[in-house]
Amino acid sequence: MKDVLDGLYGVVLDRKSNPQEGSYTNYLFGKGLDKILKKVGEECAETLIAAKNGDNPATVSELCDLLYHLLVLMAAQDIPLSDVAAELETRRQKLGNLKPMRETDRNT
Amino acid sequence: MKDVLDGLYGVVLDRKSNPQEGSYTNYLFGKGLDKILKKVGEECAETLIAAKNGDNPATVSELCDLLYHLLVLMAAQDIPLSDVAAELETRRQKLGNLKPMRETDRNT
Amino acid sequence: MKDVLDGLYGVVLDRKSNPQEGSYTNYLFGKGLDKILKKVGEECAETLIAAKNGDNPATVSELCDLLYHLLVLMAAQDIPLSDVAAELETRRQKLGNLKPMRETDRNT
Amino acid sequence: MKDVLDGLYGVVLDRKSNPQEGSYTNYLFGKGLDKILKKVGEECAETLIAAKNGDNPATVSELCDLLYHLLVLMAAQDIPLSDVAAELETRRQKLGNLKPMRETDRNT
Repeated sequence: MKDVLDGLYGVVLDRKSNPQEGSYTNYLFGKGLDKILKKVGEECAETLIAAKNGDNPATVSELCDLLYHLLVLMAAQDIPLSDVAAELETRRQKLGNLKPMRETDRNT
Repeated sequence: MKDVLDGLYGVVLDRKSNPQEGSYTNYLFGKGLDKILKKVGEECAETLIAAKNGDNPATVSELCDLLYHLLVLMAAQDIPLSDVAAELETRRQKLGNLKPMRETDRNT
Repeated sequence: MKDVLDGLYGVVLDRKSNPQEGSYTNYLFGKGLDKILKKVGEECAETLIAAKNGDNPATVSELCDLLYHLLVLMAAQDIPLSDVAAELETRRQKLGNLKPMRETDRNT
Repeated sequence: MKDVLDGLYGVVLDRKSNPQEGSYTNYLFGKGLDKILKKVGEECAETLIAAKNGDNPATVSELCDLLYHLLVLMAAQDIPLSDVAAELETRRQKLGNLKPMRETDRNT
């Protein structure tokens, strides 16, 4: 994933400050929060359906649709990607901590 | 975001190959796809509600819950993060391409 | 509510057996289950958003969109409305039973 | 369906005005709108999953969970069932009108 999300979020933020005619991202900003959230709900349902179909290429495509609309949501609400990254890192550490604890368990 | 998602996905994949007692991630894998998808739907609804409340810390927290469960979904379906990154990169380029076109417009 | 749902379900079932050109219901049947479920997810998200806006006329409208698509789902899956009614009646009785028990409590 | 929904809504409204200890409906009212909406989103996801599994008894059960939580939502927002019934009746008539038009078509 590296900084693909950063790159995509950068484009979304740039659209917000420099609106472009014909841009779907600007169409969403123009419609406002409710439209963005409606799309998030829709793409989430499509991700569920693709996963239930066991169709991985379709699931990847729907996941990307969902992630893109989540980035638009974050931009609309002025949420920096770094806030989400920091919170995810906290969770990774918590999840990761399980393992050493268990390994210690096994040593005892 | 850099490689925070990679790091978190690494932990999720490690849980899949090395199950740990007391691990919520393994609880989800044990319950199976339907349970994972139910959680995805639930966290998506909570993201919508937090965003409508204009509560950014809560929105960040729900976004992270959603992203984590999407990673568990990907691991359950054997979807590499690199597949999602490649598809997102394609989209970033498509979105990004809008700009040079517009800049050309401006030059004319 | 009386038999409004029965009436609407009757029309939906009639569309299924006697397709009509230009009918949205037949468009949905033609697209199949995944499209119907996608619409259910979409209308559910819109119901949440309308409710968070405290906009009752919009909530009623979205609730009706959701209920209509749930009826189309039931017709697509050959689920009789009487099956849903029977299950709801079981639940009403269970919920309703709480009260006499409490009234007995109060008498003691 | 007849008046099963009316009956169930009556119990939900009665719980609202006469709270009962140990009542799940009162637990939801106590938690407030966000909790009710979260449950609506959750039950909607479960309905999608059950339908994708082609499991009709499970789909009926999830549909009833969803309908019950929608009734709790309506009660929380002071939406009379008659408002939803009136709007559904309007839609039934619009949908139903298609048919005579088509029958006329066939006569010509």
